[in-house]
Amino acid sequence: MNHELLLTILKDVASGSVSVDQAARGLANMAFEDIDYAHIDHHRTLRKGFPEVIFGQGKTAGQIIGIMERMIFQENVVLVTRIDSDMAAAVRKRFPEAEYHPEPRMLIRQVAPVKAMGRGTIVVVTAGTSDIPVAMEAALTARAMGHTVETIFDVGVAGIHRLLDHRTALEQATVLVVAAGMEGALPSVVAGLVGSPVIAVPTSVGYGVSLGGLTALFAMLNSCSSNVAVVNIDNGFGAGYMAAMINR
Amino acid sequence: MNHELLLTILKDVASGSVSVDQAARGLANMAFEDIDYAHIDHHRTLRKGFPEVIFGQGKTAGQIIGIMERMIFQENVVLVTRIDSDMAAAVRKRFPEAEYHPEPRMLIRQVAPVKAMGRGTIVVVTAGTSDIPVAMEAALTARAMGHTVETIFDVGVAGIHRLLDHRTALEQATVLVVAAGMEGALPSVVAGLVGSPVIAVPTSVGYGVSLGGLTALFAMLNSCSSNVAVVNIDNGFGAGYMAAMINR
Amino acid sequence: MNHELLLTILKDVASGSVSVDQAARGLANMAFEDIDYAHIDHHRTLRKGFPEVIFGQGKTAGQIIGIMERMIFQENVVLVTRIDSDMAAAVRKRFPEAEYHPEPRMLIRQVAPVKAMGRGTIVVVTAGTSDIPVAMEAALTARAMGHTVETIFDVGVAGIHRLLDHRTALEQATVLVVAAGMEGALPSVVAGLVGSPVIAVPTSVGYGVSLGGLTALFAMLNSCSSNVAVVNIDNGFGAGYMAAMINR
Amino acid sequence: MNHELLLTILKDVASGSVSVDQAARGLANMAFEDIDYAHIDHHRTLRKGFPEVIFGQGKTAGQIIGIMERMIFQENVVLVTRIDSDMAAAVRKRFPEAEYHPEPRMLIRQVAPVKAMGRGTIVVVTAGTSDIPVAMEAALTARAMGHTVETIFDVGVAGIHRLLDHRTALEQATVLVVAAGMEGALPSVVAGLVGSPVIAVPTSVGYGVSLGGLTALFAMLNSCSSNVAVVNIDNGFGAGYMAAMINR
Amino acid sequence: MNHELLLTILKDVASGSVSVDQAARGLANMAFEDIDYAHIDHHRTLRKGFPEVIFGQGKTAGQIIGIMERMIFQENVVLVTRIDSDMAAAVRKRFPEAEYHPEPRMLIRQVAPVKAMGRGTIVVVTAGTSDIPVAMEAALTARAMGHTVETIFDVGVAGIHRLLDHRTALEQATVLVVAAGMEGALPSVVAGLVGSPVIAVPTSVGYGVSLGGLTALFAMLNSCSSNVAVVNIDNGFGAGYMAAMINR
Amino acid sequence: MNHELLLTILKDVASGSVSVDQAARGLANMAFEDIDYAHIDHHRTLRKGFPEVIFGQGKTAGQIIGIMERMIFQENVVLVTRIDSDMAAAVRKRFPEAEYHPEPRMLIRQVAPVKAMGRGTIVVVTAGTSDIPVAMEAALTARAMGHTVETIFDVGVAGIHRLLDHRTALEQATVLVVAAGMEGALPSVVAGLVGSPVIAVPTSVGYGVSLGGLTALFAMLNSCSSNVAVVNIDNGFGAGYMAAMINR
Amino acid sequence: MNHELLLTILKDVASGSVSVDQAARGLANMAFEDIDYAHIDHHRTLRKGFPEVIFGQGKTAGQIIGIMERMIFQENVVLVTRIDSDMAAAVRKRFPEAEYHPEPRMLIRQVAPVKAMGRGTIVVVTAGTSDIPVAMEAALTARAMGHTVETIFDVGVAGIHRLLDHRTALEQATVLVVAAGMEGALPSVVAGLVGSPVIAVPTSVGYGVSLGGLTALFAMLNSCSSNVAVVNIDNGFGAGYMAAMINR
Amino acid sequence: MNHELLLTILKDVASGSVSVDQAARGLANMAFEDIDYAHIDHHRTLRKGFPEVIFGQGKTAGQIIGIMERMIFQENVVLVTRIDSDMAAAVRKRFPEAEYHPEPRMLIRQVAPVKAMGRGTIVVVTAGTSDIPVAMEAALTARAMGHTVETIFDVGVAGIHRLLDHRTALEQATVLVVAAGMEGALPSVVAGLVGSPVIAVPTSVGYGVSLGGLTALFAMLNSCSSNVAVVNIDNGFGAGYMAAMINR
Repeated sequence: MNHELLLTILKDVASGSVSVDQAARGLANMAFEDIDYAHIDHHRTLRKGFPEVIFGQGKTAGQIIGIMERMIFQENVVLVTRIDSDMAAAVRKRFPEAEYHPEPRMLIRQVAPVKAMGRGTIVVVTAGTSDIPVAMEAALTARAMGHTVETIFDVGVAGIHRLLDHRTALEQATVLVVAAGMEGALPSVVAGLVGSPVIAVPTSVGYGVSLGGLTALFAMLNSCSSNVAVVNIDNGFGAGYMAAMINR
Repeated sequence: MNHELLLTILKDVASGSVSVDQAARGLANMAFEDIDYAHIDHHRTLRKGFPEVIFGQGKTAGQIIGIMERMIFQENVVLVTRIDSDMAAAVRKRFPEAEYHPEPRMLIRQVAPVKAMGRGTIVVVTAGTSDIPVAMEAALTARAMGHTVETIFDVGVAGIHRLLDHRTALEQATVLVVAAGMEGALPSVVAGLVGSPVIAVPTSVGYGVSLGGLTALFAMLNSCSSNVAVVNIDNGFGAGYMAAMINR
Repeated sequence: MNHELLLTILKDVASGSVSVDQAARGLANMAFEDIDYAHIDHHRTLRKGFPEVIFGQGKTAGQIIGIMERMIFQENVVLVTRIDSDMAAAVRKRFPEAEYHPEPRMLIRQVAPVKAMGRGTIVVVTAGTSDIPVAMEAALTARAMGHTVETIFDVGVAGIHRLLDHRTALEQATVLVVAAGMEGALPSVVAGLVGSPVIAVPTSVGYGVSLGGLTALFAMLNSCSSNVAVVNIDNGFGAGYMAAMINR
Repeated sequence: MNHELLLTILKDVASGSVSVDQAARGLANMAFEDIDYAHIDHHRTLRKGFPEVIFGQGKTAGQIIGIMERMIFQENVVLVTRIDSDMAAAVRKRFPEAEYHPEPRMLIRQVAPVKAMGRGTIVVVTAGTSDIPVAMEAALTARAMGHTVETIFDVGVAGIHRLLDHRTALEQATVLVVAAGMEGALPSVVAGLVGSPVIAVPTSVGYGVSLGGLTALFAMLNSCSSNVAVVNIDNGFGAGYMAAMINR
Repeated sequence: MNHELLLTILKDVASGSVSVDQAARGLANMAFEDIDYAHIDHHRTLRKGFPEVIFGQGKTAGQIIGIMERMIFQENVVLVTRIDSDMAAAVRKRFPEAEYHPEPRMLIRQVAPVKAMGRGTIVVVTAGTSDIPVAMEAALTARAMGHTVETIFDVGVAGIHRLLDHRTALEQATVLVVAAGMEGALPSVVAGLVGSPVIAVPTSVGYGVSLGGLTALFAMLNSCSSNVAVVNIDNGFGAGYMAAMINR
Repeated sequence: MNHELLLTILKDVASGSVSVDQAARGLANMAFEDIDYAHIDHHRTLRKGFPEVIFGQGKTAGQIIGIMERMIFQENVVLVTRIDSDMAAAVRKRFPEAEYHPEPRMLIRQVAPVKAMGRGTIVVVTAGTSDIPVAMEAALTARAMGHTVETIFDVGVAGIHRLLDHRTALEQATVLVVAAGMEGALPSVVAGLVGSPVIAVPTSVGYGVSLGGLTALFAMLNSCSSNVAVVNIDNGFGAGYMAAMINR
Repeated sequence: MNHELLLTILKDVASGSVSVDQAARGLANMAFEDIDYAHIDHHRTLRKGFPEVIFGQGKTAGQIIGIMERMIFQENVVLVTRIDSDMAAAVRKRFPEAEYHPEPRMLIRQVAPVKAMGRGTIVVVTAGTSDIPVAMEAALTARAMGHTVETIFDVGVAGIHRLLDHRTALEQATVLVVAAGMEGALPSVVAGLVGSPVIAVPTSVGYGVSLGGLTALFAMLNSCSSNVAVVNIDNGFGAGYMAAMINR
Repeated sequence: MNHELLLTILKDVASGSVSVDQAARGLANMAFEDIDYAHIDHHRTLRKGFPEVIFGQGKTAGQIIGIMERMIFQENVVLVTRIDSDMAAAVRKRFPEAEYHPEPRMLIRQVAPVKAMGRGTIVVVTAGTSDIPVAMEAALTARAMGHTVETIFDVGVAGIHRLLDHRTALEQATVLVVAAGMEGALPSVVAGLVGSPVIAVPTSVGYGVSLGGLTALFAMLNSCSSNVAVVNIDNGFGAGYMAAMINR
């Protein structure tokens, strides 16, 4: 979306030379802004109910700042995922109000409180302590999108009584996000206990034939419980986003 | 086990016509039934809102018949997936009222009409003609669970205008199931157009480095659109089940 | 070679009725027999407490018969694994007393009852109905080696209450064999419930990214429970053999 | 949770000094403790005969210390595996009595001598010098669980006479742990010599198509000797744990 | 070796000022030069229309300088690919006129302007911002070979309207290079829109099951559009070279 | 494209009620025809210069016939790829004028001679005799698109003099298609000899670690010659199509 | 092409009875013969000491006959590998004197006795009975090339004494071929016992993670014995050929 | 252990100056030496004609020194492979006479000149400059074993005339070692030119789908030339060792 064009349209509306209806159609066509190294999709909030999220990996701090500078005019919340602490520090020099979460490596710039969007509670569960960063990425994403999130950590299947103790919370969730590495068995067990959709997130926790999370991923895709769908390894963001979509 | 039977037992307990001990034993027995080669999970409808589904692959016709004989006393709908036409014929000798769908290889025995359960319409989309059997498995599953399903077939990305022509139907769906083989690109494109959750189903359609569907699977898990979650290769049943759960 | 024969020879040496040289040649010949296409390891019972087992796959019926003809002079039990029904029929023309088990594809020729060898009960568990043939191979092997075996079938993690209902039997086992395909989660859950060694057997049951059992295998090797060791995919024989070794 | 504490509570219930309700709540709390980032499984000693072991990888020093602080009230031995020297140093500031083993990267905190638990001797064997750290992890684990362990290092199959020279020690073992990288052939050869169960541990020693230990793992799973079961790559801890379970 | 030099030699032969034998030896020496660690292929410009390109990875700075010293006598343009900034700095001490491009890690030494070679415009497209370095390698290569190149960056399929907005530029290209990581869907969509050959370049951008670019590669090879051929992961150089060959 | 609409437009043009220009715009918008199991892309000839090709694998004979019935009104040539002889026979009952080529499993229906389209000659080369069916698929495709094709078969690198003997033909080609299985070395060698683009087609010829063509594919993608781009395993059609695009 | 024919031509040139031009054309034609679907490499005996071998897989009976018809004028021995019994029968209608070996699927046509070529004895060893067909392919190839071959079958590492019993034969071999499936350990052990080169042949014998022979292959490539080199899975022909080359 | 020492002992036995028992004990001790972290195989020179080689990777400097200290009493040449420069420096403090070769990362300690052992010349060839370190490891190994070695570097198939220029040297070799990364095509081409055995060494040179050398390895195993056998990726040592064995 070209800023000048936007201003022109808005001035025309203000002056009455263009009707509100005409302006709305015009703006819908102004779908993105080309800043050479990125085509910013200003239309996304309109289409999806949530703005484009900046995938930090492989971008320079300058590129992230440049994209944020265009987005903040229109968006209440801007999320940057997979951004290291060094790069986050560089971006926060320009946007000191943005908050950095080192474990899930997310940067969140939020101006006003987010409007509540959910039908119920999203519950985020992990098999182990080492899966927590991925779970936090999911929880932060869903909260930034206006949803209530509860967390239950380290309830893997080696001690099934730990999980069964939280049975009520699990049953009351409208959507669940379950993160697990190693053998990735937890989503199957959780999904067997509840009647809600489960988004499974394999994590790269493990060694040897955990194969960087592939084993957990494949196990989850083979779940003998049918109310399970899966996202990419360590993709807490995607799981939180999908859970929020479902909970809307 | 259905909810009404459960309520009857509980009311009997409340009224004193059945002792607590008797009811407890009754409910425990209702939870599952052990017939040597299978533990039938009668509790599943209670927990999940839909009975256990029989995975036909690797079972004998005798085993499938045996399991169905126990399920039909309590369930209105019984689904058998991945059942070849020969075995389906053998099962239909015992249950001639069951309907066999050869393309998706499903057998459905349904007594009364299913109660409508959905919040909106589930749209099932395929990239090619060869993906249709998988899509039909998804559609039949969701319909058996009480949901309205529309289908749009053969709108893959090699001719993107075919897809864009159906844009209104896509945008109005509450959940989408998108099946694609080969490069598996369609779910990303569809998810980029809509603000609803997309369940992506990779299919084994293709050759060479389609790797039996692995390429489509991995592509879908790497979707640059965030409102996508994925099920196993050719798992139309799981996709339809998950879509129904979300649409409830 | 059985121990009694060995003792006889050694006593003859001690008594002087057989010279050291004669005995040495005799024992060397007993160690194995070369019949061109096979070196039959007659020494194995002595070393391991159980005779060599004939791996049927890739052998002709003539070769299997030839090997059996040499083994039966010394062994009470002869096992042939992975033998199809056609080939089993051919072998049973020569050894009609051998019993064929079509599901696990095993042929067992046993002359006298096997002596009880175990310290306790081996419990064999499966996640699904389709895993039963592999479990039966394990059970038949351990029984042929003189052990008491109990079986619990179709108690996979999608309905965890089915498994928990058998908790006492699981806890009383001295060794457990757990067979599962798909996501292979059951051994982790079982091992978390008991204080005995668990031999996990991945099965090739499943489709898509079950990858012919690789996913279940890798999941089991990544078990977050530590009392689990694993054998090859569909290797019920090896699991039963190993369980018998441990139970001795 | 140890058995004595459990007995005390149960005796109090029997004597009436504690009500059933109070005891139930007490036991439930004893089963695990939720400290936000971990659910500590105090029940594990009761179920398994050995407390939960802390998997150090992916945890912060603060998390490890926090978990240890809860465990030491009830447990004589606490093991931390896969903990680097830096993190071990941080943990030892809080628990200076804990002993760090840099080669296998284990931290062991033991208060009183461990009670002898074994039926015989566990023998730990390696193919090469580079496999020793994994073997030490197995040996330390089994010793911490109360077992006698002997070690034989660098007797790989390229010089089979080195192995045959130790034949007596191998034959007298009640259980064997065999660690090997590269082609992973040693467990097959050792298992062919003995009549006891062999736990095979593939190591990541090698290069090229050793594939980080996958080749050794697959070779071991394909062992033509039947008394072999396998654990994950470099999982010396699991091998030692399993051997101890079998030797009990 | 350039064509002019070849013509000179041949004219000298024709005029008799150089004997056939002398010319033959001269030409043979021109074909390549053996400098111990490299056989420099001086013949390549003659055969291919562009000189040998130095693949920097795995070479020392000294080796690169040595090869360049032989090439510059005959070649107007020398390209070094996959050369890190440290090594480029070392090479530029000897050839300060060479220009280093840090993002695509290329070093280009060009003496005179390159003669225009192309039939039309090559368009280089990327799915994301992180794919730009690979795209720049393609663009710089094609320009060094005398072709006109336009670039369109960050028009991935998650917002298909960004791509469609550039439809005219895409349709007017004689050849297209399309770089994408993650699910690698963009080349299929672009190729569906145009009637020109598309060279697809998978990039290693992504995580989890992007598998370092393998997923994008396989997706592109499975493209349902037929006017697509593929080069190695991150091989921007090869894509630019191939595009230039086609555009000649 | 809806047939009735098409007829209406054409009648209107015939009657003069619609101008030719208006009709042309209208027809351009009528891009595809939805026949339930397929969206036929009538626009493709306009966009790409060649009509949609029917991928036979996974379709029924009825579906293929249905699609052909819609295409033949507009297209001079219809290609069906990957169609077995049985199915081809069924289709030829409806279209007896179509020609079936059993080795490359192609069905071609061509009404009038194809107009010559090429700038020069496409040369199709194979490494072995077993690669010929794939090469024929490429040659037939390019010829159906109006190009001159020469073939050179069985000139693999084990006898390099066989290839060098055809050097002149190779050098005079404007585009080359090179098919090879096993180690896939031929495209590198050919591309080193010529200054034209080479489309490499890996074939599934071989056994063991030919891995169904993956080895040849990966070898070709790693070609040390830069004028090589690659298509999917056994994708002779794609190679011929791409070569024709380049030769136009 | 045999050496004698070559000498005749050259002598004719020397004596002047044949002109240089005539001889050149003659020799060029002798180098290979182009029969459309094959370039027969008549030069190979000259270069390699053994004629081209026909790889039967993927060829038609007609093609094999056609190639044999050209070869038999110049060659004493013609080998066809990987030819099924049906196709062999078709070929033997034309060449009834050819001998078919069904287990290794080889067809050998030999006119006169082969001249002895070897320096010593080649010993071919297998781990199991099921590996014998591959070993026979190696033995027949080496014998057809004029070498003395001994075989030792079924001496795998599960009973190492069977192997050690043949130690003298192993030590006296000048070259060894060792075929093994499953864990592929035998070549390492054999190579550790001898001071001669060992050609290891992985076989596809096994199941599960034998991965069709990949595990044995990788194990052999990782051999801790250094006098081992490896050929493709089931490539008995290549192993025999290589052994013959070394033994010459 | 060298042969002379062995002969001395045996002569002493023959002359009666040493008893059979004493000699037996002496020889048994000579066979290997157990120094806790290693079993040094002193017997290897006797069995193989060359002493055990120390694989440096995964060993500490102290362990390497300890092993060398035992070996140097009996061996003229000691090789250490895969030893980094830091560790080599530490070892050279103890053995300053040892020579370190940084490119192939080998340490060689040689006291007296090595006796010539070969029948002819070993030729070591590389495809590229980056493959030279691997080739040097092969050349140094073969030379240390007493063989004459020639090297030809950077003659890959992209410029086949560079290779053909060295045809005489290739044809005169008794054995060839050919190292190549990327597509690994060179061994096939070289083997097609010569009648001697070729040991192919895949290198990890390349990127993307070179897969760390797997592609080159698989290509070499699929060589359409039969006189090729293969060693592990980057295993220059093994290739040189095997070549020396063959050349003896």
